[in-house]
Amino acid sequence: MKYSKLFGKTIKQDPKDEVSVNAKLLVRAGFIRKEVAGVYNYLPLGFRVLDKINKIVREQMNAAGGQEMLMSALQNRANWEKTGRWESFDALFKVKSRYDFEFTLGPTHEEVLVPIVKQLINSYKDLPLYLYQIQTKFRDEPRAKSGILRGREFIMKDLYSFHADDKDMESYYEVMKKSYKNVFERCGLKAIETEATGGAFSKFSHEYQVLCRSGEDEIIYCEGGDFSSNVEIAQVKEGKQCDLGHGPLKRARAIEVGNIFPLKTRFSDAFGLTFKDKDGKEKPVVMGCYGIGITRVMGTIVEVYHDEKGIIWPESVAPYMVHVVGLDLEERSVMEEAEKMYKLLQAEGIETLFDDRQKMSAGEKFADCDLIGIPYRVVISKKTGEKLEVKKRHEKETKFVTFDKLLKILNF
Amino acid sequence: MKYSKLFGKTIKQDPKDEVSVNAKLLVRAGFIRKEVAGVYNYLPLGFRVLDKINKIVREQMNAAGGQEMLMSALQNRANWEKTGRWESFDALFKVKSRYDFEFTLGPTHEEVLVPIVKQLINSYKDLPLYLYQIQTKFRDEPRAKSGILRGREFIMKDLYSFHADDKDMESYYEVMKKSYKNVFERCGLKAIETEATGGAFSKFSHEYQVLCRSGEDEIIYCEGGDFSSNVEIAQVKEGKQCDLGHGPLKRARAIEVGNIFPLKTRFSDAFGLTFKDKDGKEKPVVMGCYGIGITRVMGTIVEVYHDEKGIIWPESVAPYMVHVVGLDLEERSVMEEAEKMYKLLQAEGIETLFDDRQKMSAGEKFADCDLIGIPYRVVISKKTGEKLEVKKRHEKETKFVTFDKLLKILNF
Repeated sequence: MKYSKLFGKTIKQDPKDEVSVNAKLLVRAGFIRKEVAGVYNYLPLGFRVLDKINKIVREQMNAAGGQEMLMSALQNRANWEKTGRWESFDALFKVKSRYDFEFTLGPTHEEVLVPIVKQLINSYKDLPLYLYQIQTKFRDEPRAKSGILRGREFIMKDLYSFHADDKDMESYYEVMKKSYKNVFERCGLKAIETEATGGAFSKFSHEYQVLCRSGEDEIIYCEGGDFSSNVEIAQVKEGKQCDLGHGPLKRARAIEVGNIFPLKTRFSDAFGLTFKDKDGKEKPVVMGCYGIGITRVMGTIVEVYHDEKGIIWPESVAPYMVHVVGLDLEERSVMEEAEKMYKLLQAEGIETLFDDRQKMSAGEKFADCDLIGIPYRVVISKKTGEKLEVKKRHEKETKFVTFDKLLKILNF
Repeated sequence: MKYSKLFGKTIKQDPKDEVSVNAKLLVRAGFIRKEVAGVYNYLPLGFRVLDKINKIVREQMNAAGGQEMLMSALQNRANWEKTGRWESFDALFKVKSRYDFEFTLGPTHEEVLVPIVKQLINSYKDLPLYLYQIQTKFRDEPRAKSGILRGREFIMKDLYSFHADDKDMESYYEVMKKSYKNVFERCGLKAIETEATGGAFSKFSHEYQVLCRSGEDEIIYCEGGDFSSNVEIAQVKEGKQCDLGHGPLKRARAIEVGNIFPLKTRFSDAFGLTFKDKDGKEKPVVMGCYGIGITRVMGTIVEVYHDEKGIIWPESVAPYMVHVVGLDLEERSVMEEAEKMYKLLQAEGIETLFDDRQKMSAGEKFADCDLIGIPYRVVISKKTGEKLEVKKRHEKETKFVTFDKLLKILNF
């Protein structure tokens, strides 16, 4: 993509109506624009990051046997009344049609999916079943000051699992733990599996918490990685020695990027979702649910990976891999050389953003690079010879390498 | 995918609450489930079809220079008031937050995009600009009896183009005509480019109409392909001889699967979207907009391609390319043979659904094949020898071919 054509130019000043680091940087760098508090539009750069995260999540969910589907945002009031959540779920956006309908905008999809599963399964042979979607959710949040970390409209991956008994659910719960570990690692995030409240229906659930000063949650955890608990339910205090000899437990702020939750028969009971076991006996289906906030993952990455100059995207989710910066482009031969490099990289299948703007200082162009945060910067100028000037976003030193060496660095 | 594991089994009887052919077949075949009138959930088979259509649309929009983004469903009331459409657009779902916000659920995105474009462009150098998204839209429709042809919630591709003058807009309008032709052809639809009303702002617009008795629109058209007009604005009558000698004009019902529309300065004026031309003079940006109903395209394909037995998917949008039907699977060697075929096809990159159910008659299995509508059926039974029994969904005769020949038929 040529930067001169890209929709989403950088801004030098922080937007006045944003307080969070993620929103300030993402707006300035041209990834997002606010619609209203808690609701954002994703410009082409932002869309590309979401797309990368979605692909990682899809691969891991498919690998865990998940079948992808797409459920509606408008949800039937009647089903929310059956579970008692029409009144008790306080963040519902309720919507009246002019034609005697009433909906909620879905903040989650148990009320949609369980009635469908009820129509489609009968026997133990139909279980287990793993269904997921990547879809836009809505919650009427009281506060919406955290940029894309806590939205009134946001994208989630939600997977629901259906089992014949607790044991099977618990075993899939462990499979999902591994999937979640893979998803977050691949997105460049160190997410700590953290014990959390199970609510009224389960002893426990697990949250995936990324340490970050701007996080809304607090966890008590062992740096050795064998223990973490949300302070809400922690039985131990900061400073206590870890049982496994990893030293004192720490307390820190964190962002919850995902959670997994044994629903047990909470929703099966509400909708009469049962199956016939091997002996022909009707039994309730046991469920689990597993969420990842896609937009929140994007925001968390920015909160964790940035410096005073801008964003530092991990390669796996970066909107482009290489930022070709053309300098001295007023000289025709230099422009041709820069165009050539842009095309060569594209021909190698490397996603490239080419800053083709003329009459702009190196300083201004490099500032934009640092703000946008693409992993590799390649400079083409009138000084460019056999070797290319390459710099990684998070490293200080510039390297001079041949094109072949550059391709090797980029893992091709 | 093994059919025994697939979420979305067939149903023999038509659903009682559906009148449209598309909804009856898609529900019976396990592609969709109704949430409420005009709102559908897409089960795994349905999701796969949407995904195929989306990919075709994306390829064509990217080829036409479109930059993909993702805008919000919740839209700022203030911007709808600026265009006067908060009151005049009668299908808005208006949503009140508990926190003094008021939104509409977006039925279209001019009110969102134009203010963003205003922030980001200044000069004639920033034009033209082509932005699109594939996103869920909402309209509070009075009637919602046409299945996924007319939804209260539906998926659309909407592209907006921004130009320095009418001429440039008109030239891109012709580019989009070609893109639309490609999209519909690739989806297997014969869409007739049809003159339609331009509303208050333009002399004309164009609709893409697919002939179908269940269509809500009526067009007067020449079978030779040189003329088509929506009856709403047609200056000629059915039966009149075509000027180019193609015989009498016909009148027929049709489904509108897309439309393209010169917006001119309607929204630029409302939001003060201007640019500086070469002489430094402020001028209003000229716009066009271009929509394709993704879910409607899916429904239209079913309306057009079905018979008394079920759906007949075009290869380009079929959920799977091959339906392997195992018979006599109670015999272990036959099950092994069928499994082997399933794996061989998958290894060749051919998307395959494998009906691995035991103790079910050939008749029942073939009926499910015909209902689901996958292009190729391959039967594996105890009678299977060197040659495979292959049948195309829309052909009557069965062929007996080697595996290599089958791969050739499938274009590999």
